[in-house]
Amino acid sequence: MAELCVCSVLVTGANRGLGLGLVQHFLRLPNPPQWIFATCRDPNGQRAQELQTLASKHPNLVIIGLEVANPASIKAAAAKVGEHLGGSGLNLLINNAGIVKPNSLDNETPEDMIQVYTTNTVGPLLMGQVFLPLLKKAAQGSPGSELSCSKAAIINMSSIGGSIASSYGWELMQITSYRCSKAALNMLSRCQSLAYKEHGILCVALHPGWVQTDMGSCAGHTPPVTVDDSVQGMLKVLSSLSEKDTGAFLDWEGNVLPW
Amino acid sequence: MAELCVCSVLVTGANRGLGLGLVQHFLRLPNPPQWIFATCRDPNGQRAQELQTLASKHPNLVIIGLEVANPASIKAAAAKVGEHLGGSGLNLLINNAGIVKPNSLDNETPEDMIQVYTTNTVGPLLMGQVFLPLLKKAAQGSPGSELSCSKAAIINMSSIGGSIASSYGWELMQITSYRCSKAALNMLSRCQSLAYKEHGILCVALHPGWVQTDMGSCAGHTPPVTVDDSVQGMLKVLSSLSEKDTGAFLDWEGNVLPW
Repeated sequence: MAELCVCSVLVTGANRGLGLGLVQHFLRLPNPPQWIFATCRDPNGQRAQELQTLASKHPNLVIIGLEVANPASIKAAAAKVGEHLGGSGLNLLINNAGIVKPNSLDNETPEDMIQVYTTNTVGPLLMGQVFLPLLKKAAQGSPGSELSCSKAAIINMSSIGGSIASSYGWELMQITSYRCSKAALNMLSRCQSLAYKEHGILCVALHPGWVQTDMGSCAGHTPPVTVDDSVQGMLKVLSSLSEKDTGAFLDWEGNVLPW
Repeated sequence: MAELCVCSVLVTGANRGLGLGLVQHFLRLPNPPQWIFATCRDPNGQRAQELQTLASKHPNLVIIGLEVANPASIKAAAAKVGEHLGGSGLNLLINNAGIVKPNSLDNETPEDMIQVYTTNTVGPLLMGQVFLPLLKKAAQGSPGSELSCSKAAIINMSSIGGSIASSYGWELMQITSYRCSKAALNMLSRCQSLAYKEHGILCVALHPGWVQTDMGSCAGHTPPVTVDDSVQGMLKVLSSLSEKDTGAFLDWEGNVLPW
């Protein structure tokens, strides 16, 4: 397995679940990133304690407060990231933060539809816009023209639940607000891949598997995949991504998923 | 060509463009609907004059004020429709109202993302929820078990622009907020088809072609398809829909489009 080798990475929603798992695995790489920016809404709160403990041991881990639905918060975070990086760019942006409401189609509300879309779809759009200068800088500073995660990439954490073709898990969870937000996120990934390719930035939508996290267990079912297995799989996939993959929808084992 | 034969139909955004064209063609059918409910935001305003003129000549055409992003407005409209229908149900709900913002990916804003999603995606969700009792009633009152537009159906006006696989027209128009909203609408159609099948309601997402309307011309290009050709094609497609089509994404010529 080719090891993922990136100088700098930012993970949103990094205080728990897959986000925290990604941070832990990045720290454990033989060649860990020089900078790991772990963002969450409340970096000093109770729910960020595990992240705080990790940061106290790893000087390359920086915790930053960020609310993905708030443009001002994203801009402030990008300024902090820029300060740490000095003149360097950001190689890898992982838009992992997401929410789900365990609604059926009948009891979806406009408020839930908008809230889920704002976090799961508008957030990654804004993150891409605001971090674009740092991603461009990373691409320009990397040797070679081939796209890769070591050079510059945006990874949008999507879901098989957002696959229109598959209707995966409908019988267990209708979660229409979530499915719509992830289908829209897949479209966003595709748009980002088309717009940012000329800047040397790779963009994919990634399904982490149905993972044993608070979110994955939202509907009272036990998901089959552990956080460790999912994250290990995803990092392997990330290490293998190249030009041909930009704009794709892949799962944690590298399979191409239907839109 | 089999003629479309429905007792009652509701079209949103019916004061201009495709919505107005649909109303005009329904009125001209050899067997026109007993009730055509044409909704728009401001039924008494300047922009609804053509609809007003039509209604003065056709007693089966009823104009109703409706803002698809406003649940209270939808409920009030459904009550009026129910009064007109007496004990009968509504056969055909055409969620046609939609908006577009001519933005590039770089200048999309959270406000535009939310506004476009609210009208194009949340609106059709709410319309389906609120009109479900009338659609169910129509399905129950129709002979036979086969799904069809004559029995009960929801038609969501989508767009090839919402096809994640095709990225249609990206070089001409990035319109990411619109593309995301239509990809999400396609997902919604799929969800509605799964949830409402047991009630005898057919649901499809329909691409009307790139049509010569105010909206189609938004980016300064002349679209290739006339309103008349698009509407005629769509009515032919609607007349042919059956059980096997529910949950599909079709264009105005009946072709299956990629998600």
